[in-house]
Amino acid sequence: MIVIMRHKATDDEIDAVVLRLENIGYQIHLSRGVERTIIGAIGNKTPGDVGLEAMPSVEKVVPILQPYKLASRTFQEEGTLIRVGGVEIGGDTIHVIAGPCAVESKEQLMEAASIVRSSGATMLRGGAYKPRTSPYSFQGLEEEGLKLLAEAREATGLLIVTEVMDARTLPLVAEYADIVQVGARNMQNFSLLREVAKVDKPVVLKRGPSAAIEEWLMAAEHIMAGGNYNVILCERGIRSFESYTRNTLDLTAVPVVKHLSHLPVFVDPSHAIGKWRYVPAMAKAAIAAGADGVMIEMHPNPAEALSDGAQSLTPNNFVNLMSDLKKMAGVVGRKMP
Amino acid sequence: MIVIMRHKATDDEIDAVVLRLENIGYQIHLSRGVERTIIGAIGNKTPGDVGLEAMPSVEKVVPILQPYKLASRTFQEEGTLIRVGGVEIGGDTIHVIAGPCAVESKEQLMEAASIVRSSGATMLRGGAYKPRTSPYSFQGLEEEGLKLLAEAREATGLLIVTEVMDARTLPLVAEYADIVQVGARNMQNFSLLREVAKVDKPVVLKRGPSAAIEEWLMAAEHIMAGGNYNVILCERGIRSFESYTRNTLDLTAVPVVKHLSHLPVFVDPSHAIGKWRYVPAMAKAAIAAGADGVMIEMHPNPAEALSDGAQSLTPNNFVNLMSDLKKMAGVVGRKMP
Amino acid sequence: MIVIMRHKATDDEIDAVVLRLENIGYQIHLSRGVERTIIGAIGNKTPGDVGLEAMPSVEKVVPILQPYKLASRTFQEEGTLIRVGGVEIGGDTIHVIAGPCAVESKEQLMEAASIVRSSGATMLRGGAYKPRTSPYSFQGLEEEGLKLLAEAREATGLLIVTEVMDARTLPLVAEYADIVQVGARNMQNFSLLREVAKVDKPVVLKRGPSAAIEEWLMAAEHIMAGGNYNVILCERGIRSFESYTRNTLDLTAVPVVKHLSHLPVFVDPSHAIGKWRYVPAMAKAAIAAGADGVMIEMHPNPAEALSDGAQSLTPNNFVNLMSDLKKMAGVVGRKMP
Amino acid sequence: MIVIMRHKATDDEIDAVVLRLENIGYQIHLSRGVERTIIGAIGNKTPGDVGLEAMPSVEKVVPILQPYKLASRTFQEEGTLIRVGGVEIGGDTIHVIAGPCAVESKEQLMEAASIVRSSGATMLRGGAYKPRTSPYSFQGLEEEGLKLLAEAREATGLLIVTEVMDARTLPLVAEYADIVQVGARNMQNFSLLREVAKVDKPVVLKRGPSAAIEEWLMAAEHIMAGGNYNVILCERGIRSFESYTRNTLDLTAVPVVKHLSHLPVFVDPSHAIGKWRYVPAMAKAAIAAGADGVMIEMHPNPAEALSDGAQSLTPNNFVNLMSDLKKMAGVVGRKMP
Repeated sequence: MIVIMRHKATDDEIDAVVLRLENIGYQIHLSRGVERTIIGAIGNKTPGDVGLEAMPSVEKVVPILQPYKLASRTFQEEGTLIRVGGVEIGGDTIHVIAGPCAVESKEQLMEAASIVRSSGATMLRGGAYKPRTSPYSFQGLEEEGLKLLAEAREATGLLIVTEVMDARTLPLVAEYADIVQVGARNMQNFSLLREVAKVDKPVVLKRGPSAAIEEWLMAAEHIMAGGNYNVILCERGIRSFESYTRNTLDLTAVPVVKHLSHLPVFVDPSHAIGKWRYVPAMAKAAIAAGADGVMIEMHPNPAEALSDGAQSLTPNNFVNLMSDLKKMAGVVGRKMP
Repeated sequence: MIVIMRHKATDDEIDAVVLRLENIGYQIHLSRGVERTIIGAIGNKTPGDVGLEAMPSVEKVVPILQPYKLASRTFQEEGTLIRVGGVEIGGDTIHVIAGPCAVESKEQLMEAASIVRSSGATMLRGGAYKPRTSPYSFQGLEEEGLKLLAEAREATGLLIVTEVMDARTLPLVAEYADIVQVGARNMQNFSLLREVAKVDKPVVLKRGPSAAIEEWLMAAEHIMAGGNYNVILCERGIRSFESYTRNTLDLTAVPVVKHLSHLPVFVDPSHAIGKWRYVPAMAKAAIAAGADGVMIEMHPNPAEALSDGAQSLTPNNFVNLMSDLKKMAGVVGRKMP
Repeated sequence: MIVIMRHKATDDEIDAVVLRLENIGYQIHLSRGVERTIIGAIGNKTPGDVGLEAMPSVEKVVPILQPYKLASRTFQEEGTLIRVGGVEIGGDTIHVIAGPCAVESKEQLMEAASIVRSSGATMLRGGAYKPRTSPYSFQGLEEEGLKLLAEAREATGLLIVTEVMDARTLPLVAEYADIVQVGARNMQNFSLLREVAKVDKPVVLKRGPSAAIEEWLMAAEHIMAGGNYNVILCERGIRSFESYTRNTLDLTAVPVVKHLSHLPVFVDPSHAIGKWRYVPAMAKAAIAAGADGVMIEMHPNPAEALSDGAQSLTPNNFVNLMSDLKKMAGVVGRKMP
Repeated sequence: MIVIMRHKATDDEIDAVVLRLENIGYQIHLSRGVERTIIGAIGNKTPGDVGLEAMPSVEKVVPILQPYKLASRTFQEEGTLIRVGGVEIGGDTIHVIAGPCAVESKEQLMEAASIVRSSGATMLRGGAYKPRTSPYSFQGLEEEGLKLLAEAREATGLLIVTEVMDARTLPLVAEYADIVQVGARNMQNFSLLREVAKVDKPVVLKRGPSAAIEEWLMAAEHIMAGGNYNVILCERGIRSFESYTRNTLDLTAVPVVKHLSHLPVFVDPSHAIGKWRYVPAMAKAAIAAGADGVMIEMHPNPAEALSDGAQSLTPNNFVNLMSDLKKMAGVVGRKMP
């Protein structure tokens, strides 16, 4: 890390900082400039753990190394391939996870699953536990929903992706799901991350709406440091002042994360945008930007959906999108199953 | 709610929307304008629960009523008073919650508690379970930290405010704490909110860094709908593009929440700003803006803190601030204990 | 517009609002509900022009119609085609505007122009007047730069796109340029918009970094209302908390603007992102999302650039990108020249 | 500046960066670490002017010195006092600038001025040229408005603060105004800043809604570098995701700017918030936070205002606020005239 001292910091103040750094095991390179003294400190602590900025003589502390290690491309150069239920995520093949926001009934889910299957997607999404802004909204079918998802897998061969909201229900969710999802609002629920780290299933880690890319990678680091290396990152929009869309889809995060990390990256345009009309264009753009897959909300009848109908594609629009995505995959040198 | 139809929506499309609304129990007022048809719908559902925006003929759905009820001043005109351990929160008296970010040791906590006590503050803060961005940082003393907090209460008479991160440790936290805190990153951890709702202790609910005021009040609604009416809201900064401070303290939220809700509002300038230098000015501004109290990080030796030293006041700066806050309370017609 | 009265608004208060609205020419539909009275007001004023929210009895005013008219697809259903110097913008053909951030010298510009030409792009960008954050940075060659741009056009046949910063130099800029650019930081410089409206050249209107889509369209409306209908919108990133990239490229704005307006939309990933490494991926994504063209910074030697070298492609990277964009255009049913 | 090389940068790549830096006059300190090589470069160029980040071997460039000089407290330790028309801004006395958003008529302005005068404020605001989002809204009385402002000064002795929108009308505005205002949306209109720098009147420089504090100070630097040292900074809200208020008042910017710069700082809560109801609380908080003054919109009859009625105080509310501000000034060791 580099410590920039305040203008006119005295020798005593500089010595105090150097001493503090040496005491906790850093090697020091001191550079006294005309305007500022700069202290380079080489060692292993995270700058946030060293209370230097509490010292009035310190202007700024600049970290040099990225705070994430296991998630970094510096640590592992080649991209991570995640193999689950016969598919490979993060390789040449682009995967589509699709389905309704919430599991509502057997009929709804089976109809959705059948459309997802026949369109060429490989994974079925559907929430059994729903994080809802209002306590008065539909909260999901819970275990009953998990069972329906398992039935849909049985019937179609699709892999099941579903969200876990709570460490207490994680064993149940992990029993039914092929891939466990950590939702955007739980991205920094560190208790949950620690538990998910112990599960032997890949994890889709949604980016939090106010999470910088580095914080998102740090959340992945929590899971990896706990022993689960199969993390799929999923961009789903960040909060900005633009309110026409629900969130602002930060598609540039795709090539950025591909550069900084070896983990696969998906994009969920449905939740990011909140309006079905713009989902197909942005799903295509996600593939063009280099995503390893997309997650799409599709409902047999969006106008009757109990949750997020406004952002769900109709079966017809979804089938058209799948056809477009296949062409798009080709043009970026990839393929779809 | 009001449904604005798209320009050139046909009669059939309008009828379909009306029918959908009537079927789920809304009363309809139709207003056909030259440019747009407007449908007024009177009933009890939350607009988000009605998939109208999935219909291509619908331009926009505008809710009329606030989605929160129990937290609203429409529901309860007079401000909520929360009585706990002999103090009253939300009344004329302004309270200060102060202490270190994390409980680090008996010595550190006892020293902090003694300073907090003698300065005139009534509540001691200190984290036993710490949500940390990095898995490699100090994560808190856990139950040992809770016990030290109880000892500090014993020694000083201060009330204990500490954070719960997980439904599984809630019983333990609630056993030791006088007031349970839900942290900013858990503001929409709905599983946790549901559990906190069942506990017989007041709850400090921090505002999430990307939570709109309405979402914050909806999080309070989750707790109140579950049976716990003693919610203290705490503004602690929102995420904006300005990166000089850690977050952007949205102090205007104080009078806004006072207008929309009857719940008490505190402000935590330490976490919002992340730099101790600016904390005293903003603590004073918080009281001037109408806050019912402030939460301040103070550490016996910030430069040695294991967590958030950069934003902690020294004992000396804290004592000076307390003296300023007393004057400030007077000028807005309030008092301090 | 719809006026939502406060809970418990009295009859006198409601009458006062109705009277105020009738006096300025609105027709009124009154709907007294149990919880709230709603006043529908039909007329032509912009809600912001009516001081209703100054009345304490008014809770909220909701506009129904979009505030822009000429720029709206409701006003003109088919997309605007802009014909300039033999090219057609907004039709089937996707155009690329490329070149250095600033015109630095004859040699630099001619070399850049020659690469741009041979790669198949149709327009050359280059700043003669540079808006620079620091007064101590290179501010552009001014008229000398404009002359060099004209020479480059002469030599290559490329159309010239260059920025105007001031109403006083507009005549000069408009004399040399084929397309005049209004920069992001001038998007709400209404004096400049009014002058640009009188010029007989198409205008590239960059989106301001804190401009909502509606405000951007309102800026276009200023130009169109003044008589210049040839406005090309250009998304170039909005300000968000994510600081890894310079701004957050809001690519979803492309299909949104295509839905709301008939104007052509370009994307400038170079300025949005600020790092050359991620520009090609996002240029491709822009075309996939439906943009009518992209604007790309390319410099013969980025490391020697006087301005924005960090985001400029090398000639080699640019030529590769052009080849990718041609394939991308094909897959979305469009072509490149 | 400090240059952080990429992991595995080769010796040749490191040499190329060193050579580039030495060629443009930097002194070099090289530090080869195990994970990263760090290059310290001492010299006078702004990092943005050096295209190092265009080199693929460079990971990141970290500036050490602040890019502003004249505006910095490092350059001038004691606070700037601005003396104009018998008042002193930036000293012990807190000043209030008040009046309507726009000059609408002689009657309106005189009534407003008389209230402003009798309440103890020293300066009258009122727009003659109005930057309006819609081209169909009232655009101001222009020169006629300036004449009315001069008449109001004649009648009351108040100093006149009014906005300039265009270099072409600046001579006229400067002739009538005592203090010239540069609006938020023109904060980075560098052509205008350069002209304002040549005028012999103090300048109120509003913070742009997407301007970081450093950019705001750089805009002041533009004016100061051009010769006008009498710059009054004015915080007026930044753009965030919170849409209940028009912008988010970043009150922490007050103590931050006071720390970084010697220039006086005002706060305009009216434009920041957009709702009159919350303006008094935040005006008081501004003084508590250390502002040198506030700018308040007050209209004799807000409900009839041609512009921004929703955020204007009534005369009665304004008079009450002035009385509260006097008490507030006392408690922070300052006074009002």
